Amino acid sequence: MDFKKLSEQYKTELLENVMPFWLKNSLDKVYGGYFTCLDQKGEVFDTDKFMWLQAREVYMFASLYNKVEQKQEWLDAAEHGATFLLEHGHDGDFNWYFSLDRKGNPLTQPYNIFSYTFATIAFGQLSLATGNPYYAEVAKKTFDIIRAKVDNPKGPWSKIVPGTRDLKNFTLPMILCNLALEIEHLLPPALLDTLIEECLHEVLHVFYRPELGGIVIENVDKDGALSDTFEGRLVNPGHSIEAMWFIMDLGVRLERKELIEKAVEITLNMVKYGWDHEHGGIFYFLDRLGRPPQQLEWDQKLWWVHVETLISLIKGYQLTGSKECLAWFERVHDYTWTHFKDTQYPEWFGYLNRQGEVLIPLKGGKWKGCFHIPRGLYQCWKVLEELAERPSS
Amino acid sequence: MDFKKLSEQYKTELLENVMPFWLKNSLDKVYGGYFTCLDQKGEVFDTDKFMWLQAREVYMFASLYNKVEQKQEWLDAAEHGATFLLEHGHDGDFNWYFSLDRKGNPLTQPYNIFSYTFATIAFGQLSLATGNPYYAEVAKKTFDIIRAKVDNPKGPWSKIVPGTRDLKNFTLPMILCNLALEIEHLLPPALLDTLIEECLHEVLHVFYRPELGGIVIENVDKDGALSDTFEGRLVNPGHSIEAMWFIMDLGVRLERKELIEKAVEITLNMVKYGWDHEHGGIFYFLDRLGRPPQQLEWDQKLWWVHVETLISLIKGYQLTGSKECLAWFERVHDYTWTHFKDTQYPEWFGYLNRQGEVLIPLKGGKWKGCFHIPRGLYQCWKVLEELAERPSS
Repeated sequence: MDFKKLSEQYKTELLENVMPFWLKNSLDKVYGGYFTCLDQKGEVFDTDKFMWLQAREVYMFASLYNKVEQKQEWLDAAEHGATFLLEHGHDGDFNWYFSLDRKGNPLTQPYNIFSYTFATIAFGQLSLATGNPYYAEVAKKTFDIIRAKVDNPKGPWSKIVPGTRDLKNFTLPMILCNLALEIEHLLPPALLDTLIEECLHEVLHVFYRPELGGIVIENVDKDGALSDTFEGRLVNPGHSIEAMWFIMDLGVRLERKELIEKAVEITLNMVKYGWDHEHGGIFYFLDRLGRPPQQLEWDQKLWWVHVETLISLIKGYQLTGSKECLAWFERVHDYTWTHFKDTQYPEWFGYLNRQGEVLIPLKGGKWKGCFHIPRGLYQCWKVLEELAERPSS
Repeated sequence: MDFKKLSEQYKTELLENVMPFWLKNSLDKVYGGYFTCLDQKGEVFDTDKFMWLQAREVYMFASLYNKVEQKQEWLDAAEHGATFLLEHGHDGDFNWYFSLDRKGNPLTQPYNIFSYTFATIAFGQLSLATGNPYYAEVAKKTFDIIRAKVDNPKGPWSKIVPGTRDLKNFTLPMILCNLALEIEHLLPPALLDTLIEECLHEVLHVFYRPELGGIVIENVDKDGALSDTFEGRLVNPGHSIEAMWFIMDLGVRLERKELIEKAVEITLNMVKYGWDHEHGGIFYFLDRLGRPPQQLEWDQKLWWVHVETLISLIKGYQLTGSKECLAWFERVHDYTWTHFKDTQYPEWFGYLNRQGEVLIPLKGGKWKGCFHIPRGLYQCWKVLEELAERPSS
């Protein structure tokens, strides 16, 4: 593989296609915040504002400002979103709503813990970019609320009757693996260590199941046992593969080689498990016992699944030299660039049917924003660049 | 069309294929109630019990007992489900849970109003079948709770922040159109009249929109205005077509010809609006402005959409002689029998992809049970039988 050429390809796509798309189309200059519902051409098709995506876009602009180049327009764009978030995104006590209307009036209650996690990484990165202590305080306060909500994230909006079947879900520990490093500069070292160890334990010793051939499942009983239920049978390959590059990053940070090797092994298990041998691409959901899944969208091919897989595979190769990672990277790279990148207009498609045809021709919506594509392009660019610069290559 | 032959086809499918499938595979003889998660061959793949489907199956057995033949096994099967529902399905005050585990322990809180509506029609039909006044009382009590919950059906589990965008949804008035006639024998005539007039007003003067070419939409502002939002743009063709045969039944019952004619007109509008000219079948969801829909499953072909459409089209022809209804009935009949009926094993598939291939090979699950297929086969059989017996045919 020509790492230099590939690295340029990811970099150019990020800096000349994807980020300009969001800068040009996404800022709401009248009411603040971002439009994220953008059609194929970048035109706004809905004006609601979703806190996941508002926060993720602040994060993305601030993060590129911190990591790539101190471009004023990126910092301005990040603060543009942050101002709106602070003014309208929470209830006054940093309980982050799920969605607002264009003007910032709350539409959906703060039931979703991931509005909080993404607010934390947004203000974490922005505090690094600006040195503004208020942003750091917002990140820390929100992080404290997340810690307090871990056992019952949905609070009063949970529809589960407690006591009958108390499942644990993979998503929060998985996200916290990433969040830990994103706000490392804001946490006391002892808390950081505890957080990391807790999350690693949950991911690698609770949701990763050697007895199932080494896959990761989305839900288990509170005591860690397998649950033969819709939730307990659910496998989300992209989700667990995404977690694996978080763990590789932790492995590098903590200098723990065994973490990296485990994460590489699981990445390969999951990409093989999730690959659609008939049409290519990685399935969205599978049932670990091969039973009919609950999710009607189970066979669709989603942008974030593929982009996150690219990151884990190329990091896996970078950190261990696994030839299998490189071969799979090539395969997923070809599928992803051929099917998700729009050759007519900027940015990438998000939703393909099983056959790989565009199912919904949006560039941004309620769940797709300025996040997985640019973060993935950035991550792959940087790894490929390092690989290109190695004396051996 | 050979109505006699067709009528036999629907009757045979109901009595010799579909109902025996449920009688044989669905009854949980250990813990009571029904298994509804049944795979292609009829084997149980999950044991959770969903109140929608438990109640609908009670309804179906009781209703066939009342309308087709007083078969003891149908009545026994209905009471088998009713006993479980009464023992475990509610909180003691007829607040009906959404789901239970196999043994009857509650899993999901009573947040869903349609658990209540289906409990009402179940116990309504069962009270007719048995004359047992307790069943009648359960139906009436549940109906009273529905009336009290109309303005805020989800109660404490609603995630909507009140005041920002208070939308009205089509589903409840639509279901009440049907429920009114199902429990007519239990309601004081004045209340029945009020209920019917309210529902007809909502369906035909609020959600039906002449200014949009005569389609029905799923959500409007509280004041009845159109809402340019994901919810306010949503069209569910099968849903509104289903409502149209409820209105035709009301038109017959009230001897109001103009209701029937309006319902036929809307049925034809919606089937044309929802038809997939590329692959055949009726889309699940559409956006009335052609914008990217929120529902990833928008292009799928669902069993209930097609079966409900058959009922409205054949009733439309029966009641008005519309040749267009008959031509569309033939078209949808061909698509439905070719694609949804399993030629290998009993009962029908529920979920096809846009191309018409089986997407999830189940016969019953969390949402598909013993309801739309048998009710649809029964309704079409009876209309076709009447058409076959007309002197002119």
